[in-house]
Amino acid sequence: MTGVAPLPSPYRFRRGGEIIGGQIAYETWGTPSAAKDNSVLLFTGLSPSAHAASSLADPSAGWWEQIIGPGAALDTNRFYVICVNSLGSCFGSSGPATIDPATGNRYGNQFPEVSIEDIAAGGHTVLAHLGIDKVELVLGPSLGGSAVLAFAALYPERARRLISISGTMAASAYAIALRSIQREAVRNDPINGLRLARKLGTVTYRSADELANRFGRRPSVAGQDFAVQDYLGQQADKFSKSFDAESYLTLSRAIDLFDLSEHGNPADIFKHSGVVSALIIGVEQDSLFKIDEQTQIARAFEAAGVATRLERVDSVAGHDAFLAEQSRFADIIGQWLQNL
Amino acid sequence: MTGVAPLPSPYRFRRGGEIIGGQIAYETWGTPSAAKDNSVLLFTGLSPSAHAASSLADPSAGWWEQIIGPGAALDTNRFYVICVNSLGSCFGSSGPATIDPATGNRYGNQFPEVSIEDIAAGGHTVLAHLGIDKVELVLGPSLGGSAVLAFAALYPERARRLISISGTMAASAYAIALRSIQREAVRNDPINGLRLARKLGTVTYRSADELANRFGRRPSVAGQDFAVQDYLGQQADKFSKSFDAESYLTLSRAIDLFDLSEHGNPADIFKHSGVVSALIIGVEQDSLFKIDEQTQIARAFEAAGVATRLERVDSVAGHDAFLAEQSRFADIIGQWLQNL
Repeated sequence: MTGVAPLPSPYRFRRGGEIIGGQIAYETWGTPSAAKDNSVLLFTGLSPSAHAASSLADPSAGWWEQIIGPGAALDTNRFYVICVNSLGSCFGSSGPATIDPATGNRYGNQFPEVSIEDIAAGGHTVLAHLGIDKVELVLGPSLGGSAVLAFAALYPERARRLISISGTMAASAYAIALRSIQREAVRNDPINGLRLARKLGTVTYRSADELANRFGRRPSVAGQDFAVQDYLGQQADKFSKSFDAESYLTLSRAIDLFDLSEHGNPADIFKHSGVVSALIIGVEQDSLFKIDEQTQIARAFEAAGVATRLERVDSVAGHDAFLAEQSRFADIIGQWLQNL
Repeated sequence: MTGVAPLPSPYRFRRGGEIIGGQIAYETWGTPSAAKDNSVLLFTGLSPSAHAASSLADPSAGWWEQIIGPGAALDTNRFYVICVNSLGSCFGSSGPATIDPATGNRYGNQFPEVSIEDIAAGGHTVLAHLGIDKVELVLGPSLGGSAVLAFAALYPERARRLISISGTMAASAYAIALRSIQREAVRNDPINGLRLARKLGTVTYRSADELANRFGRRPSVAGQDFAVQDYLGQQADKFSKSFDAESYLTLSRAIDLFDLSEHGNPADIFKHSGVVSALIIGVEQDSLFKIDEQTQIARAFEAAGVATRLERVDSVAGHDAFLAEQSRFADIIGQWLQNL
């Protein structure tokens, strides 16, 4: 099912500014139990929509097609899975591409600055809209891996379990540097810059070993020098046709500015979150959201007395492993959910 | 001393095209011996000029100030050190910023495609101009680390020893991907794109650990979000004021296209080079010219029967360690030269 939940109106953003008549787009799979105690709330990475898996309404494959479904790791015979499109994105939720009712024009760069906390609030808005008080599980990868931490900080006792995948409590200087370059490219030139930003994203989301294995020095078939350049071009084509440049800027900066410690000591935050068990998944070869950052999240949950499991995935797919190696993530998540 | 050596006229480039009246700029330190058997030929990275060290003629510090001088690792009391500005660069050697005598305008993107072999030929041109038949040592870092391999391939019996620092026999898909993104930025917009390219270069020349140690999440003092962004801005300012965008494009692509195996099996090349001892230096944290690529170079020299030493440097300065940690490189180079 697809749906839209109204944001409180006006909705006041964490770092200032407000919108009226805002909304959060979501999709659901499975059926809520009578007690509404079988919900799973899923946040996304920077670029995907809420279409995490196929459905009758939209049979196209979703971005986590192998993780969600009947008998899958997020078993829709058991769970009512809800995926939200991030506030600030461009797939149905309010964002820079939305029309500002006050002017009749798209907000563009006048859209208030979005924080990871605002994205977490968007998830909470959808739960309220669906009449769900508490979810069995909140989870998300990448930006979503940070959004679940913000959700735990802002909404105590609203999630029983938590999975954070390749997220961070506060981005590293290296990741900030790379994202600031991507945003500068987009600000310089929203069309060609978004292509450049996605190409750089693609290189840093994967790993040097993967590019070596897949492409090596094989020549281009598209008039460039090397096949790896064709691959980057294909990624840029796909992304720049579907994603809004202003949404990219605001969501990219939201990751940089997120700092969980603004809400207190992480262990204290998690202690008061009501989360009883946490699974933290990181990839050894992830250069953007490093395995050390995953270890720090896991240690904070442990220090909070939460039953914590840290899974270190060895994958040349790097940061993108949660997309490129879904069957491995399905095994990890499925087993963890079985054993609880 | 600074000087200019005329290229053969016309000079025919390896991958096609020619120029007339071309030249190679160079600087020297020390004094040639009567037998002219104490020369050191130094190739540079992509961006530096031939001003590797200060001199009476130009007392400003050079890019390898701590390596070259009286009593230094490249001891100018002993050696006659010659540094060449790469063909295609913009510091006195012929390149895209040079005036084409046929048109009276700068060559721009009509300058022939420069290869690493052409850069090696530029070094050979300077030696011929100075009446030097054979050098005691040929060396270079980064692009220069590949240029010395091309020199060994093209000019057998012209160098007795060789030091290759953080170069490659053939660039990796990862490095090609990043450089292709930098070039696309410059082609899109030569001014802002050159800034972007240098910022990306700065991030990838260093390491995530160094950026974390130096900047962490410290706030900007220049109106951006974080101090690491100020640092990138300073690097971009310096570079974009001094470097020619077309030179950048041609030298960047030269590194991508270089493949030593075009000249045969590397071990055979080195066997026939006349090089009697080789020092290969790499940095464990170098993400662009990886330590494995240095190991491959060393193995090829070993297979050629050349006395070979591989030095693996542990430095968070990454690819830039040869600039950022000159005293360590001075020790390595100085000791190797002493022990021969």
